Amino acid sequence: MGLTLTQLTEFFASQSIPCEVDGDGSVVVSSVATLEDARDGQLSFLSNPKYEKELAATRASAVLVRPDVKVSRKMNLLRTPDPYAALTAAIVRIHGYRQHPQWGRSAQACVHASAVIGEKPNIAPGAHIDENVRIGRNATIYPGVYIARGCTIGDDVVLMPNVVIYEGCVLGNRVTIHAGSIIGEDGLGYAPVNEKWVKIPQVGNVIIGDDVEIGANCTIDRATLGSSVIGNGTKFSNLIAIGHGTKIGEDCLFVAQVGIAGSVGVGRHVTMAGQAGVVGHISIGDNAVIGAKAGVTNDVEPGLIMLGQPAVPINECKRQVAIVQRLPQLKNEIKRLRRDLDQLMKQVGGG
Amino acid sequence: MGLTLTQLTEFFASQSIPCEVDGDGSVVVSSVATLEDARDGQLSFLSNPKYEKELAATRASAVLVRPDVKVSRKMNLLRTPDPYAALTAAIVRIHGYRQHPQWGRSAQACVHASAVIGEKPNIAPGAHIDENVRIGRNATIYPGVYIARGCTIGDDVVLMPNVVIYEGCVLGNRVTIHAGSIIGEDGLGYAPVNEKWVKIPQVGNVIIGDDVEIGANCTIDRATLGSSVIGNGTKFSNLIAIGHGTKIGEDCLFVAQVGIAGSVGVGRHVTMAGQAGVVGHISIGDNAVIGAKAGVTNDVEPGLIMLGQPAVPINECKRQVAIVQRLPQLKNEIKRLRRDLDQLMKQVGGG
Amino acid sequence: MGLTLTQLTEFFASQSIPCEVDGDGSVVVSSVATLEDARDGQLSFLSNPKYEKELAATRASAVLVRPDVKVSRKMNLLRTPDPYAALTAAIVRIHGYRQHPQWGRSAQACVHASAVIGEKPNIAPGAHIDENVRIGRNATIYPGVYIARGCTIGDDVVLMPNVVIYEGCVLGNRVTIHAGSIIGEDGLGYAPVNEKWVKIPQVGNVIIGDDVEIGANCTIDRATLGSSVIGNGTKFSNLIAIGHGTKIGEDCLFVAQVGIAGSVGVGRHVTMAGQAGVVGHISIGDNAVIGAKAGVTNDVEPGLIMLGQPAVPINECKRQVAIVQRLPQLKNEIKRLRRDLDQLMKQVGGG
Repeated sequence: MGLTLTQLTEFFASQSIPCEVDGDGSVVVSSVATLEDARDGQLSFLSNPKYEKELAATRASAVLVRPDVKVSRKMNLLRTPDPYAALTAAIVRIHGYRQHPQWGRSAQACVHASAVIGEKPNIAPGAHIDENVRIGRNATIYPGVYIARGCTIGDDVVLMPNVVIYEGCVLGNRVTIHAGSIIGEDGLGYAPVNEKWVKIPQVGNVIIGDDVEIGANCTIDRATLGSSVIGNGTKFSNLIAIGHGTKIGEDCLFVAQVGIAGSVGVGRHVTMAGQAGVVGHISIGDNAVIGAKAGVTNDVEPGLIMLGQPAVPINECKRQVAIVQRLPQLKNEIKRLRRDLDQLMKQVGGG
Repeated sequence: MGLTLTQLTEFFASQSIPCEVDGDGSVVVSSVATLEDARDGQLSFLSNPKYEKELAATRASAVLVRPDVKVSRKMNLLRTPDPYAALTAAIVRIHGYRQHPQWGRSAQACVHASAVIGEKPNIAPGAHIDENVRIGRNATIYPGVYIARGCTIGDDVVLMPNVVIYEGCVLGNRVTIHAGSIIGEDGLGYAPVNEKWVKIPQVGNVIIGDDVEIGANCTIDRATLGSSVIGNGTKFSNLIAIGHGTKIGEDCLFVAQVGIAGSVGVGRHVTMAGQAGVVGHISIGDNAVIGAKAGVTNDVEPGLIMLGQPAVPINECKRQVAIVQRLPQLKNEIKRLRRDLDQLMKQVGGG
Repeated sequence: MGLTLTQLTEFFASQSIPCEVDGDGSVVVSSVATLEDARDGQLSFLSNPKYEKELAATRASAVLVRPDVKVSRKMNLLRTPDPYAALTAAIVRIHGYRQHPQWGRSAQACVHASAVIGEKPNIAPGAHIDENVRIGRNATIYPGVYIARGCTIGDDVVLMPNVVIYEGCVLGNRVTIHAGSIIGEDGLGYAPVNEKWVKIPQVGNVIIGDDVEIGANCTIDRATLGSSVIGNGTKFSNLIAIGHGTKIGEDCLFVAQVGIAGSVGVGRHVTMAGQAGVVGHISIGDNAVIGAKAGVTNDVEPGLIMLGQPAVPINECKRQVAIVQRLPQLKNEIKRLRRDLDQLMKQVGGG
């Protein structure tokens, strides 16, 4: 299973990742590890300069580094302008992606007679597939998954254990949903009548694009009417809540515990850091970046980086934080001004 | 399945919702959609003035609007003082509420011999009901639900897939719990002993009132002693955490990712917006409104609107935010004051 | 099942908890309740002085209190320097810990032929245990639990319903995981390539130490390489998200909805209050305390108490909050300074 460093650079070249051996190209690596954990026979990497001091101490057989990194001792280096991309390619080449158990179409799965399942299904015991569900080829469906009536699911989809998909939702191709996530539950849709809450039937659905990956224990509300949408290529971490009718663009990246209220429009390639929140009925432009714990309360222009609560553009936020931290000094200066002024008034008044 | 606009207004009248046709009462609508999505044969609505520009462009066959809304072209309008209530009624009339699969009492559900189940059960394969559980009439229990020993559950309850109810909890009538929510897990109850944590058995339970709806992937701790309580008519969105021994009043509305620590008392008809948090052992009065991301650290008087972290009444918070945003100007004014004062001191001193 | 107060104090003595009866030692208590809920035959406690007024009104047959607590009427008191420790011991003695259903090794559990299960298993119908899983003695595994291939699980472990453990993870002895928690899902590991996200296989695992308790609906990412770690004796509440490669020390206590990004090092005996967040690639020292909703963005020294967003040491935060709340006054003082100064300048200029 091992590869020589020379073989690795050839593989990188085939992936359009330039990389040169700085050391002994015949050295063999058979797995990948962090600088700290790596041992003989392992490939490691330095991507974040913060870990540079660990480079000198590593026992890795070889390390992916940027071309300009200097080392104080003899090491086998693989120099590349993008160590992170090379690392990714190396892990894929050496370790590969998750291998799923092979259940075929288990007789202990509950599949409704009207469901249409594509070629090469891999459906576990204890999975439930309801009326009129359509599923494409190569589906991997773990135990405890429930797919409600009328859902349409693409090819090469992976649903990890205990994922629940409510009725009428649509998943594209190559969608992966991690354990415990819920797709298409009702949103918080109630009409207020005399301080009681009258439930509005939530008759829309959720549409998830191709190549979307959703983390564990997320919740994505179905729309009241129409669709909540997650665009192609978007990736979610865990415990994320998306409100009803919200539409999220392509290639977004959302960190854990992000919450977005209903009827929000999020552009493409938007990054939301951990625990960020967005109020309902606003728009966030393409390529915007929302900082950790930021609370977005107004439309965000494309490309802006927003921080704080309420969120403001990053420079404004940093200036505010800096001034707040200097407030004790300002307060003292105000005191001094008053003292000096009072003294002067006395002096002048008395003059 | 369609209704004419005249029939709709008659139906609204039967629901005590005044509504008048402004246009052709013989037009038929058979489903409901947003202004943007609506097509021929669909009813739409304008409730939030923010979407007024979409009114002119909609292809809906008819639109619910307030009496005073003006339109620049010929449209079929249904004028009513409360378009949202009318919309709710129209969706219920035209689309109805969720229809559940009908399993009867599945032989593949694991139901303990001592469990007592009311009339017309609808219990899925893969549901688990333990010793001495009592369930009322018309229960709908999806796959993957686990109800531990000694729980008491009312009539017309719906438990969506993978809901877990720990031992001894009580659910009222017409309770709906969405997928993946956990009711009655242990709270974080430990006694500190020499920097170790000694577990305190959590021997209380959770009591959920009538007409409560809980979103997906919520967690409601059982009380250490006594009961955690969710009052009648209260509605939760998703990913909400309620601490042990907390008692929440009737008709509250909690948005996603709200977190309330233990031993909190929340009054009736309290609204908590997304990601708001409340520390332990405090009280929140009736009709209070807690803003998104607010952090409540002290008792809240009835009817107050609280914002910020630490949360303060809305006017105070807005004033603080406004001043913080003007801090750079204040800082400059302090600099000018110092300069002017120094100059004056020089002048006077030299005079 | 009841004990006299004298018997209780003897039991406390055996647990090294000093306690004296102040009243009638022959009184029998058979359960424990809060001051408010307690009735005849029940033991209660006063630990938080906030509830002192409930002491006078309680109907409990006896109350655990500190030695110096004064009461205005005749009551049976159990005086002890640590009422909370005594309460814990009393609840354990009188009520005990959760009793689980006894399934033995259910024939309706899906256990792979290669799995090795220790003595006295208690594995429910509908549990799934995959290839090459090793489980110690006395395991209690509820319905809907999924344990993926190659996991290693210690003795006396309890996995509540619908817990999911991804491949290759390691759990110590006496670990309890509450319902719906997910251990070892993929972290948010993608390499950015032309504004697309290329998935990095997450080939590490999660290692959970002895005596760890994890709440409901948590998510703990597997490491990209190496291990994410939860140290011995650490306790989590619900809906907590831990990022990939993060290592948490021993005897930590995390309140609900805490989120920690990837590659964070957390020391031992660290407390994180509700909804606190930590950015990636930083370190938090032993015995640090992170306040509710705090956003930690830099390394934290051992023993510090951090508040705010961005988090700062508690004194600094309190000073900032106090000044922000006094900003309107400061602003007025600046106005007055300007007015007085202008007047003085006029006076001097005209002099």
